Parts: sequence; C-alpha cells; structure tokens
Amino acid sequence: MPKRRDKLTSEIGWSTADRITVRGLDLPSEILGQMNLGDLAFLLTAHRKPTPEESRVFNAIVITLVEHGITPSAMVARLTYLGAPESLQGAVAAGLNGLGTVFVGTMEGAARMLYDALPPDQAGQGADLDALAQQVVDDFAARKAIIPGLGHPLHKPVDPRTPRLFQIAAENGLSGDYVDLMQRIQQKAEAARGKSLPINATGAIGAICCEFGFPWQIVRGFGVMARSIGLVGHLLEERSDPIAFEMWQRTEEEILKNNGPEA
Amino acid sequence: MPKRRDKLTSEIGWSTADRITVRGLDLPSEILGQMNLGDLAFLLTAHRKPTPEESRVFNAIVITLVEHGITPSAMVARLTYLGAPESLQGAVAAGLNGLGTVFVGTMEGAARMLYDALPPDQAGQGADLDALAQQVVDDFAARKAIIPGLGHPLHKPVDPRTPRLFQIAAENGLSGDYVDLMQRIQQKAEAARGKSLPINATGAIGAICCEFGFPWQIVRGFGVMARSIGLVGHLLEERSDPIAFEMWQRTEEEILKNNGPEA
Amino acid sequence: MPKRRDKLTSEIGWSTADRITVRGLDLPSEILGQMNLGDLAFLLTAHRKPTPEESRVFNAIVITLVEHGITPSAMVARLTYLGAPESLQGAVAAGLNGLGTVFVGTMEGAARMLYDALPPDQAGQGADLDALAQQVVDDFAARKAIIPGLGHPLHKPVDPRTPRLFQIAAENGLSGDYVDLMQRIQQKAEAARGKSLPINATGAIGAICCEFGFPWQIVRGFGVMARSIGLVGHLLEERSDPIAFEMWQRTEEEILKNNGPEA
Amino acid sequence: MPKRRDKLTSEIGWSTADRITVRGLDLPSEILGQMNLGDLAFLLTAHRKPTPEESRVFNAIVITLVEHGITPSAMVARLTYLGAPESLQGAVAAGLNGLGTVFVGTMEGAARMLYDALPPDQAGQGADLDALAQQVVDDFAARKAIIPGLGHPLHKPVDPRTPRLFQIAAENGLSGDYVDLMQRIQQKAEAARGKSLPINATGAIGAICCEFGFPWQIVRGFGVMARSIGLVGHLLEERSDPIAFEMWQRTEEEILKNNGPEA
Repeated sequence: MPKRRDKLTSEIGWSTADRITVRGLDLPSEILGQMNLGDLAFLLTAHRKPTPEESRVFNAIVITLVEHGITPSAMVARLTYLGAPESLQGAVAAGLNGLGTVFVGTMEGAARMLYDALPPDQAGQGADLDALAQQVVDDFAARKAIIPGLGHPLHKPVDPRTPRLFQIAAENGLSGDYVDLMQRIQQKAEAARGKSLPINATGAIGAICCEFGFPWQIVRGFGVMARSIGLVGHLLEERSDPIAFEMWQRTEEEILKNNGPEA
Repeated sequence: MPKRRDKLTSEIGWSTADRITVRGLDLPSEILGQMNLGDLAFLLTAHRKPTPEESRVFNAIVITLVEHGITPSAMVARLTYLGAPESLQGAVAAGLNGLGTVFVGTMEGAARMLYDALPPDQAGQGADLDALAQQVVDDFAARKAIIPGLGHPLHKPVDPRTPRLFQIAAENGLSGDYVDLMQRIQQKAEAARGKSLPINATGAIGAICCEFGFPWQIVRGFGVMARSIGLVGHLLEERSDPIAFEMWQRTEEEILKNNGPEA
Repeated sequence: MPKRRDKLTSEIGWSTADRITVRGLDLPSEILGQMNLGDLAFLLTAHRKPTPEESRVFNAIVITLVEHGITPSAMVARLTYLGAPESLQGAVAAGLNGLGTVFVGTMEGAARMLYDALPPDQAGQGADLDALAQQVVDDFAARKAIIPGLGHPLHKPVDPRTPRLFQIAAENGLSGDYVDLMQRIQQKAEAARGKSLPINATGAIGAICCEFGFPWQIVRGFGVMARSIGLVGHLLEERSDPIAFEMWQRTEEEILKNNGPEA
Repeated sequence: MPKRRDKLTSEIGWSTADRITVRGLDLPSEILGQMNLGDLAFLLTAHRKPTPEESRVFNAIVITLVEHGITPSAMVARLTYLGAPESLQGAVAAGLNGLGTVFVGTMEGAARMLYDALPPDQAGQGADLDALAQQVVDDFAARKAIIPGLGHPLHKPVDPRTPRLFQIAAENGLSGDYVDLMQRIQQKAEAARGKSLPINATGAIGAICCEFGFPWQIVRGFGVMARSIGLVGHLLEERSDPIAFEMWQRTEEEILKNNGPEA
C-alpha cells in the first residue's frame, strides 16, 4: 500500500484561463498542428517529444496493435453495444477489459525477458549476445516455459509484420542489441526445438520497446491505447452492419439444443 | 432489435498466413511506416486514407481530446489502479466509462445541432448562414436549452484551443459552412444573452467534424480513443508518483468526521 | 453540473476501530446472521430493513434478474475472461456494461410509465384504473411507441415468471394499484392490437417496484446487482468448461470465408 | 489457450416458451419465493441448493463484503456517474474493475494458503493443525511474505466481523479444521512477530470458504458480486446527495496550485 503524502501533484499538465500545457508544452502552439497522435502518445509516455526517427518507429509499433480483425475484444465491444448503444464508451471499455495476460502479456513478457537478459545499462556495451540468447533459451527450456514473442498459430513461417517493423527500426537508428538479441533467441530456440518459431509482432514490438528504453511495465499500455482506436472502428461497423445479434442468437440456439429439455 | 442474418461479415480486415489487411490496405507495406496513428484512426472511421491536409486537421482534433489534467476519468483510472495494479487495461476501461453525456456529450451535441440546421447535402450551397444561426439560437432559447459547444467555466473570454483549431482547419481547406455557422451561432448567442460565450474546444471539434462529414454519432468515439491515450499517461505517473491512496484517505477521513459516531 | 459543497458526506456507513455500521445498523450484531443478501440490498436502496413480507417479494424480483442463460452479457464476460483470466472482476465489469437501454430499459420504462399514469401520491386513492390504462395504450399508440413490459419473443402466450411474481406480491400484501394498472394496460393493448401481449418479467418487476415505491431510476440498479451474481456463475463454468475460444474461432473463420481474399 | 470444441454447451440453465430453469431447478416454482438472493448465489457457485445452515453462513459472508464505506471502488463509481449519469451500469462496472489483487487478493490468498497447508481431502482427518500452522508461519517468514488475512490498519486489536462470522459458522456446523487452522496461524504469527495480528474479515471469510469446500479461485467472485450491490447503494446516494464533483474540484485546484504556473 502506498504512503500518505502532504500534497497531490501531477506533472502531466495544467490549464489556466488562457493557457493549456501538456508535459511542459503549450498545447495550442507547440502541439496542435506540430505533432501527430502517435507523437503525443510518445510525449505522454516518454515525457519528451520524439525525434522524427523515433516518431516513425513509435507510430509503426502502436499502429501494429490497433486492429486484428474479429478478436474476442472486438466481439465483446460489439455484444456490449447491442445492449447499450447509447454508451459507446462502455462498449470500448468492455472490450479493453480482455487485454490481459493472454493476449497482451506476450509483448510485456518479451520486453521483460530481454531486459532480464541484458539490463539497460549494459546494452550497446559489447555484450556476448549469442551467449545471452543461448542462456535465455536454456532457462526457458529448463522451466518448460514458452518463450514470449515467438511462434504464431496463423502467420507461418514468417509473421509479415516482423520484418517490416525491424526494417523501419533499422532505417531509423532503433535497431540495436535488443533486436539482435531477440533474433538470436529465435535462432537458438528453433535449433533447440527443431521447428519454425517466427518472431511474432508482439516479440518484435517488445524488442523495439527495449530499444526505446521503455520499462516493460509500460508496454501493455501501448496495446490498450491502440486497441481502443480499433474498437471504435468495430463499433462504427456494428452500427451500420450489425453482427452481434446474430452471434448471440446462434449461440443461444445451439446451447438450447445441446443442453435444453430435448437434449 | 436487429434482424437475424445469414452470414457474419466484416469489412475491416482479414489475415492469412502471409498477409494482413486493414480496410483494404496491406498493413506491412501500405500502412506501417507510411501513416501515423491519427491517420490510421481516420482510415478506420472514414474508410479511406486521409489526404495530407486532412491528416493535419484530424490529428489536431483528436490530440486536443487526449489530455485535460486531473479529470474525473483520470481520477477513476488512478483509483482503480490502486486496487488492481496488475490490470492496466481495467484501469483504462474504468476511466473510459465516464465519458458520457456530461463531458463528451457537448461535442456530439454541437455536431448534431449543426447538421440539424444545415444538412450535409446543403452545405456549400450558399445557404443563408446568418438566418440559420439566428434560428438555432432562437430555438434553443425557446426550449431553455443550453447551446452545445459554447461557454467554458475556466477558459474565458477565449478557449485557447478554438482559434488554433480553426486556423489549422482553414490552412488545410477544412473551414467551410459549418465552422462559419458555429461562429455565427456564437455571435447571435452572445448578443441574445449579453455575455461572453466562447466557442469551446468541443464546439470547435464538433464543427470541424461536420466539415469532414463525419456522422455526429461517431464524434464521441474520437473522444474515447483519445482519452485512452491520456489515461495510460496518468497511470504511468500513478505508478511512479501515486496520488490515489492519498485521495482516498482524505475522503474517508473527512466522511468519518462528518458522519461518524462523533459527528 | 452539480454545485460545490463545503463538506464531503455519506450516510451509508462508517467504521471505527471496534465498530462497523451500515445505514445505522451494527454490521456484526444487527445484520450478520439476521438478514439475507437480498435484505441487505433492500436496506441499501430503501434505507430501512424490509418487513418479512417485503423481504420475500424483494428477493423474488432481484432473483428473477440474476440469470437468463447465454445472454450477450454472459458472452461478453466469458470472452473477456479468455484474454484476462487473472481479472475476474474485469470480466464481470465488461459483462455489466451491456445492461443498457435495450435489455434493462424496459424495466425502468415500465415503472416510469406506471408512475406517469398514476403518481405515487394518488396510488390507493381509488383512481379510475381502467381509464388510466386506456389512456396509456392510446398515448403509446399515438406516438407509435412500444409499451414497455409487454410481449416476449420466446415466452408466449405467458411469461412463466409473471404470474408467479404477481402471486408472491399478492400473498405478501404488495399487489395494489400498480400491478392492477399493469394488467389493465395489457388487456387494453391486446384488445387494441388484436394479438397476445403477455406481461413479461420486466413488466411485472417494474409494476412491483412501483408497489414498493422505488423511484423508477433505481430499477436498473436491481438488474445490475443481480446480473453480477449471474456473471460470476458463468465465469466459473467458463473456467471448468470453456466455450469462449470456440465462439471466437468460429466467428473469425466465418468472416475470413465471407470477407477474406477468397470471398 | 483452450482447445477447439465440437459443441457449445452450458449447464447453467435454459428457457423454452413455458419453462425457465436454473441449475436444474424450475425458476418460477422451485426458486422464486423459495430462496433468497444469497441462496441463489450459492446455487450458481456450488451447483446445489444450500441447506438452511449453509444458507445462514453463506449469506453472512457475502453480506460482509457488500459495503465498506468510501472505498476507492465507491469513489470510482461516483466519479464515473458524474460524467455518465445515463449509464448506471457503467458506473458499477468501473467500480468493480478495482477489485484486484490489493483489496480482494487477501481473501483468495487466505483460502489458498489454507488449502496448500491442508488439502481438502485431508481436512477432518485429524491432521496436526498446530504443526501445520507453525509451518505456514515459518514459510511466510522465510519468504518475507505477508500472511494473508491477518492484520488490519483500523480494526485493532480485533476486527469486529471476525468473531461474529466464526460464531455464525460454528452455530451452523461450518467451523472445522480450516477455521481452527486459521486461528492457530494467527497465534503463531503473533508469537513470532510480537505484535497483535487480528484475523481480519477477509481471513475469516477465506477460512469459511474452505469449510464450504469452495475452490480458492472462486472466492474473488463473492467479493465482486457483493460489491456490485454496495456500489448501487453509493450511486443512489450520489444521485440525491452528490460528492463526486466536489472531490474532483478540490483535486484539480490543489494540483493547479502545486504544479501550475505559479507553483
């Protein structure tokens, strides 16, 4: 439990009659018209403006997380909207609730694994990445644990997002020891397991987040903010071309058939 | 209640082993590295890529909605995180639930009012905007209703976001009849009420959304996606410099004093 | 927007080192072992203990709202749990978000309709219920509005909950003008429409809530508290015998077939 | 990730035109008027009707979890209602999101600790409870971990709910090895730590849940269902006597003072 404090404080921003600041920047003159939405997300998480290179890479990783088709969270948002169409915000909120350990956990898991193997203060210092990678693979094997960020049920043998994200990172100076280490972990894991284990998008994003130096605990937040945009898109489609009612009716009918009085 | 349907469909996107599309664009090659986060939000709501001009204006209006300091939704996210720090997504979801009629309603109310006065197919056709504005002000006065998008408890006599948003819209060819109509409504309302009634940010955004042609029902969605980014920022600060526990303790102590056994 | 206040107050309860009170009752000695869960819900909404008769009727109406099989809210809770099994509370929260105007609205709509026709201070004063019922039916017909609480897609010609709820209310002295008026509205509506329009459970509960004198705005709260119990039941089953993953996979496969590259 | 399945099934209940069942019981005739709300919660979690003794104990433990004054979850519900008063369900949902590891975790932690020390199949078989208790205390001390269910910041030297809950359990035949073990753990912990460590309400409830044989993973669900009732109570008070706006204004003013342009 946290401690009591004398004062309530927040460094995020403040407003007076004629001024509005966010992280020390004047919103009207220094942000509006100067930054894009991804840049503002960077400002609020890194507490500084991104460089043009950082902007390109950061926008790419957050964009990757926005939309994945009919995920459980999209189904949740649509089914919630069916009952409360007056509350778009409630349908998005419902959809976000499912972004927990199963779906978003691998992204923070990948970042955590990389930081555990190579702490931030040792990155770029000539560490023996090959040995670190082997160590990671051996440790996970000993614990019979799944290496986060590797493998994908659909995207085989390559997750098409991963080479593109790594390319964008490399073109913008954000491909260093962590991207390298992630790729070596993949190679060692494939050798040990004797099967294809592509780095999936969450693994690529986890590695690039480490290149930025973001704490692994923040990484889930990128997934949450991104998905909220995707869910609004699903709700707009649900409004014009609804499928939630049909999903419900089919499910109810099937369960009545399987468990009802005539089952 | 919606109708049954034969098929479940969605035009948002699909994935196969080696391809991922969003609204018909190939995610790796046509979106990543080519678009910023605001552009993707536009793609998912307008169903086409924004022009460079639209990109600048749309990013500006969504950015305006991201962060407003310690709002009730920020307090909610922080207080939720206090009890469930393992569930960042739940804290953001909780915060979004409050984006209802009171706070976000004025933005959609402004857009709706403008569309009611000037339907999309009549915009840009030389309508008598002055007469329409007077009509709106008279109608609201007759109903003793508050005109959405006018007035602000803090930002007087001008909301500093509004002139900047209108400037960005004008510089990018998105300042037409709706922005003009909103400004005329303000002037008529000030004349009728005899007091300063600045167009606030939600009024400016509502008007610009009409310039884009967005249905008024979508407008709340922009607030929801934007605020989710802001709430992640608040939770990161709560993690490093928490205030929720202190907010709680003070409230509990005061209520015990006011309503407890010694009150 | 509410007004500022000097003091934060709450009459709900307080705790000191050795005492805990809820609505003026000592929790350990006057509530625990003395009341059931429905009674406590009554205490928190009516601000007094129920009589034994009220307890029977109130428990019956809240119980009726707990469980309705695989509703959209149950699907939502299960699909959310699939992604965040560590957060049972988030899955229940997601499920509750859909209890909006479509599903729970008819219950508060029925109560509101009855209060509008017969204000609380005129109940039990010999009002001409037959004339009031005809007036309600005519008004709704003139507005082409659906009368809340009548009709059910499945339970025809009788919703089996309704006669039982009315019987329990009558046996416990809680069947007065409002239950009578609801039944007359049904008869007039059936006569006018020439088809069977059973009073459904939400209509029965709306009428009985009026017998209790609960404000119509509270009625949705009974649905929310009840459904949270039902959703916990669904999540326990999802834990042992999950269906959410299958619901998701089927939906995704069908949409890929209908909208994917080979569609 | 779960497996695919051929059929969607649910044993919770079904409805046909003239029948509604819940866990095999006919809702109108076997549940309504026969059971109270706590009994139905028991039916949905234990999958059978409680005995009269079980009903008394189970209602008492769930009631204990309903209301704790101005908790963070109550503040969250009220602050959410301030922005979206049209969505009572969203305000309750927001409040539930905070029932995570910090507040509700100790209850499931206590149950888990007791089951780990004394598996269900060994309860009532004459285990050496004193030795088990010492082992638990030693293990937690070695891990420098806090024993769940002991200690309370306010209720000292006794949590007034605990003796009453244990009394109700004993009077109804539900005080066996687990309640005994919890009390011995307390005594050993107090001896080892040299300070008062009362069994708090979550510890008492955790122990009694073990007497019932509930899996520890279910225990959080009792907290969630109970608190949803309490939150409805807070929202009714917020409707008639609001404090959320004042909580917000004070916080915003203080942060402006502490971090604004004149700080």
